[in-house]
Amino acid sequence: MKIAYILFDEITLLDFIGFYDPLKNMKTKGFIENLTWDLCATKKTIKDSFGLEIIIDKIKPDLSNYDMIVVPGGYGTRKLQYDTNFIDWLKTGEKVNYIVSICTGSLLIGAAGFLKNKTATTNFNEYGSLEKYCKKIARTRIVDDHNTITAGAVASSIDLGLYICEKLIGKEKKEEIRIGMDYHPKEFEILTVAKNGCRK
Amino acid sequence: MKIAYILFDEITLLDFIGFYDPLKNMKTKGFIENLTWDLCATKKTIKDSFGLEIIIDKIKPDLSNYDMIVVPGGYGTRKLQYDTNFIDWLKTGEKVNYIVSICTGSLLIGAAGFLKNKTATTNFNEYGSLEKYCKKIARTRIVDDHNTITAGAVASSIDLGLYICEKLIGKEKKEEIRIGMDYHPKEFEILTVAKNGCRK
Repeated sequence: MKIAYILFDEITLLDFIGFYDPLKNMKTKGFIENLTWDLCATKKTIKDSFGLEIIIDKIKPDLSNYDMIVVPGGYGTRKLQYDTNFIDWLKTGEKVNYIVSICTGSLLIGAAGFLKNKTATTNFNEYGSLEKYCKKIARTRIVDDHNTITAGAVASSIDLGLYICEKLIGKEKKEEIRIGMDYHPKEFEILTVAKNGCRK
Repeated sequence: MKIAYILFDEITLLDFIGFYDPLKNMKTKGFIENLTWDLCATKKTIKDSFGLEIIIDKIKPDLSNYDMIVVPGGYGTRKLQYDTNFIDWLKTGEKVNYIVSICTGSLLIGAAGFLKNKTATTNFNEYGSLEKYCKKIARTRIVDDHNTITAGAVASSIDLGLYICEKLIGKEKKEEIRIGMDYHPKEFEILTVAKNGCRK
């Protein structure tokens, strides 16, 4: 199981790290021992809107070599959705098993064509911006449409991470991770268009 | 309002970023316009346990120049609490207005002597490790003892960030931030030994 985290300037870091934390627990707890990931971008480092700078592992790798690509959101997505260089690179991930976005990361996977004929969600302030890229907007926290999985605003990153844990390792082990994180959300809605099977 | 984020190798990044997100919203929403922060460490970059590398703004700055120091947790704290070079640097923050830790960051502020005669909390698996540094362990999610403020395991970082927002800008603006983040936790306990007043 090899994950590509897609990072870029003006990212919202909690979109990324809220998802990254439960996922990396699958490795530390030995639930998926061969779990690996790369931080991927179009350049050597990326910065959030306040200058927090992260060093990248792989510059524009061929994303078809991964099992999952994860695209966080942030103000940077507003311009990046129209950046051909970035979107063409993202398209190399078209056939991976899991395509995942958090918040306005949906605009990027949308621009890459991954939401065509899909139901999807995004930040509750950006439903209108996503409409052009997908078949239908669902105003729910998480949508799973044949392993193309989208989530809402920033705090849903943790819920989405735990949802992916449950898909990969089952509910009991996911619960062990959630309790270890001391994370106790109120109940929320997940729309499952199709939970299992390949992306199509 | 100037914050020092204290970073180190083998940090748990969600401890840091879960707190950082609501705080930076106070700036973007214009609630505290002169809010600034530095990422501080004893060296130029730091890495989490999986190699995720962040570039540092200030190497060992005099922490007495800040209004708040924020110390996340992570496996690195287990060794770092006995590292004289690191702890002596942390002690330069002794007189700041707010000393804040998340999860096992409490072991570091404890080793610096900041929890002497204080009630404090930490990761629920590490209550025993914190005992030697404080007057009393409180098994609650957040403890505020005269502006020395500690929190529980990793997901409490967001709750603590929002708690600090409420202290600084009031409940209504904090709620605007929480709702913008789409964050909906179940109710939890906050122990307030003394909410206002200077650290003592």
